[in-house]
Amino acid sequence: MEARKIFLPEDKMPTKWYNILADIKMNPPLGPDGNPVSPDQLAPVFPMNLIEQEVSTERWIDIPEGVLDVLRMWRPSPLIRARALEAALGTPAKIYYKNEGVSPPGSHKPNTAVPQAYYNKEFGIKRITTETGAGQWGSALSFACAQYGLECRVYMVRISFDQKPYRKTMMEAWGGKCVASPSNETKAGREVLEKDPNTPGSLGIAISEAVEAAVSDTSGETRYSLGSVLNHVMLHQTIIGLEAKEQLKIAGDYPDVVIGCAGGGSNFAGISFPFVYDKINGKDIEILPVEPAACPTMTRGPFVYDHGDTAGYTPLLPMYSLGHAFVPAPIHAGGLRYHGMSPTVSQLATEGIISPRAVGQVEAYEAGVLFARTEGIIPAPETNHAIAQAVAEARRAKEEGKEKTILFNFSGHGLLDLAAYEKYFSGKMENFEISDEELEKSEAVFKDYPKPQLVKSR
Amino acid sequence: MEARKIFLPEDKMPTKWYNILADIKMNPPLGPDGNPVSPDQLAPVFPMNLIEQEVSTERWIDIPEGVLDVLRMWRPSPLIRARALEAALGTPAKIYYKNEGVSPPGSHKPNTAVPQAYYNKEFGIKRITTETGAGQWGSALSFACAQYGLECRVYMVRISFDQKPYRKTMMEAWGGKCVASPSNETKAGREVLEKDPNTPGSLGIAISEAVEAAVSDTSGETRYSLGSVLNHVMLHQTIIGLEAKEQLKIAGDYPDVVIGCAGGGSNFAGISFPFVYDKINGKDIEILPVEPAACPTMTRGPFVYDHGDTAGYTPLLPMYSLGHAFVPAPIHAGGLRYHGMSPTVSQLATEGIISPRAVGQVEAYEAGVLFARTEGIIPAPETNHAIAQAVAEARRAKEEGKEKTILFNFSGHGLLDLAAYEKYFSGKMENFEISDEELEKSEAVFKDYPKPQLVKSR
Repeated sequence: MEARKIFLPEDKMPTKWYNILADIKMNPPLGPDGNPVSPDQLAPVFPMNLIEQEVSTERWIDIPEGVLDVLRMWRPSPLIRARALEAALGTPAKIYYKNEGVSPPGSHKPNTAVPQAYYNKEFGIKRITTETGAGQWGSALSFACAQYGLECRVYMVRISFDQKPYRKTMMEAWGGKCVASPSNETKAGREVLEKDPNTPGSLGIAISEAVEAAVSDTSGETRYSLGSVLNHVMLHQTIIGLEAKEQLKIAGDYPDVVIGCAGGGSNFAGISFPFVYDKINGKDIEILPVEPAACPTMTRGPFVYDHGDTAGYTPLLPMYSLGHAFVPAPIHAGGLRYHGMSPTVSQLATEGIISPRAVGQVEAYEAGVLFARTEGIIPAPETNHAIAQAVAEARRAKEEGKEKTILFNFSGHGLLDLAAYEKYFSGKMENFEISDEELEKSEAVFKDYPKPQLVKSR
Repeated sequence: MEARKIFLPEDKMPTKWYNILADIKMNPPLGPDGNPVSPDQLAPVFPMNLIEQEVSTERWIDIPEGVLDVLRMWRPSPLIRARALEAALGTPAKIYYKNEGVSPPGSHKPNTAVPQAYYNKEFGIKRITTETGAGQWGSALSFACAQYGLECRVYMVRISFDQKPYRKTMMEAWGGKCVASPSNETKAGREVLEKDPNTPGSLGIAISEAVEAAVSDTSGETRYSLGSVLNHVMLHQTIIGLEAKEQLKIAGDYPDVVIGCAGGGSNFAGISFPFVYDKINGKDIEILPVEPAACPTMTRGPFVYDHGDTAGYTPLLPMYSLGHAFVPAPIHAGGLRYHGMSPTVSQLATEGIISPRAVGQVEAYEAGVLFARTEGIIPAPETNHAIAQAVAEARRAKEEGKEKTILFNFSGHGLLDLAAYEKYFSGKMENFEISDEELEKSEAVFKDYPKPQLVKSR
């Protein structure tokens, strides 16, 4: 028999996260005064234990037992050898994927939702607020809060709230409260509703509401949580790549190419940072974040200082950005519709340690359907982008007659995204690309901001 | 650390199915002439290798390597110790569940869809037809057919087809073709549509269409497939219980109570038959199939000869039945809305080896939501019935101060059933029960049929 899955036993699960801040140099985030933001300035938004993690430069950070215990509900996740996909492609390449779809909410998001809920609980917080676009993050945080007895309040972008009512139900199944944003609960929301009662909402508005709801709770018992972009989020996700490394060791293998789709950067960071560490230390390995062609942050945007949110409330972050007011085309991969990119991922791209790629929506779905028909699992729209790149690499290996080993992150399943597949099957799915003119326009927002240094980590 | 999951490695997966026909005596199925049905009479409907399996009395039947290889995509499925649920209940009982939701279609159904597709392929069949109600079975068979390059045509009950468009998309993702039933493709369908163009359809009509489509293909390359009730389906599902036994051995445990929800009987048979074998051989163990109160086949129906389908096309099967024309109330657990019960499961109930229970819909959802908030996974509506019984047993153990070990089958996840949860959360979910009068009326259909013997296996 040929094994399909490579399992790590629970007692071999990593007990430390890998912190890439130990190995790269970064531009600091800047406050409204143009000076680096201090931890104290973030204290009303995040609990101090998470802020400390955000700025830590320790290479290895212990995962608390109280976090491990919940992660063990589904972790270690299986590493799967995609034998059926390889056979369909007739490629000499070996393709492995890490299946993060096995978590109860169905994606990699709980890898950080669980520790974030845990640290908030430890800090005495009773209630967490957040925003969600398509709903993956709000689901994951609701699930995590249920595990620690925390309240969870999710501001969901109105148009997604209306289009995807099941996401709200899913959050409710875990005890989370989901409201459409803009809402009447916050000043930010009310102001938008006054001007336009029928607004579809936006992630920028939802962030503003969630942050306001957290900082305006005078009891001090509420904090805000973010599902991507920040350093501590990337840190928590590294358990994916650390496990994958152990599992590949069991299989007697090591990747030539590591692939993850990239929106804010967290699932890509999760699979790749442990391999970035190897690359920095001399390993010859290609590391490819894959963006949608409709939101080509790293492949077409510049490395600048820009805000993380549309309203401009967050500090200025050193990152690739299409401009914080950029509204990406309505592709189905909602999780990849983000104007910026995690500063750590951005830094690696500026140094040429990772090599961003862009994939069109239709190509992504072609690959996703091929994957479903061979490997059996229906992928999330975001995940299809990583699959498309893996398929392209496997086809190149065939052309070149090379026995490459490809590893990609299967960031989540698509069982709540079947409407998008229906559109694909009915031939109604479009590709979106943006013109240079549009890009130039959207990038005008940061032209007067400070510029980051081109730091070299070595 | 305390382990959450008990994994069996792939190379410890069972390589034989357990055939309960070796250990119980049965009344034979009867043809239209009142005589036992011969294998030859079934040949236009099923491939002969599956018919042989249907009538085999060998205790252990080899699982072909070509089946094992596909099952290894997700099997062995994890056995999970429900520590968080136990803690929430404050019970001294240990609760284990076998998570069949990890299969790509999300339920136990592929355990038989895969071997059925395999044996059809081996027999030279090119195309399989089937019916589906809520869509679980049609999804599973589409998935399985994709693995062996077979065409799959699914007749889906019109009302479900309209209410659950995503199920059709899911089948299409695996290359299956799903049509609303009644359709214009078959004589049976056209006759119904002529009388009532707006009919919501029924499982009985869909079965008639699927069977007709198979037997009327003059090329001889098409056969029909059924997802429950039949002996070979129960056989294929026993891999669940066989794995669970091995996993409990690893945990150093053995169940006092084994629980599965029961519609046609297949997931219940899967988890329980290997333990029935132990019980027949002297083990003291309670084995509980759980029905919905709205369709109480074994708890309120008689053991009779009745048809498996509404139209009366199938042989007469010895089973508990509410009458083949019985239309159960519209509970959300579509997979439990079946008038009859697998003959093997029925035989065990007549002998008192298993002890049927009935649970109301609202109670089932209460338990399902408790499960989601503790164990993290959102269960299918059918599965909620098994969970409700497990919770009741754990509460009884608490009252009695007993350290019982409870095992139940988590037959599938509920990610495509969130509309039902929405109804539950909004307080609009109803309980359904049937009056004795209604039952008497629905059971009139079989009053002139032959009566089965009360066979004792030992």
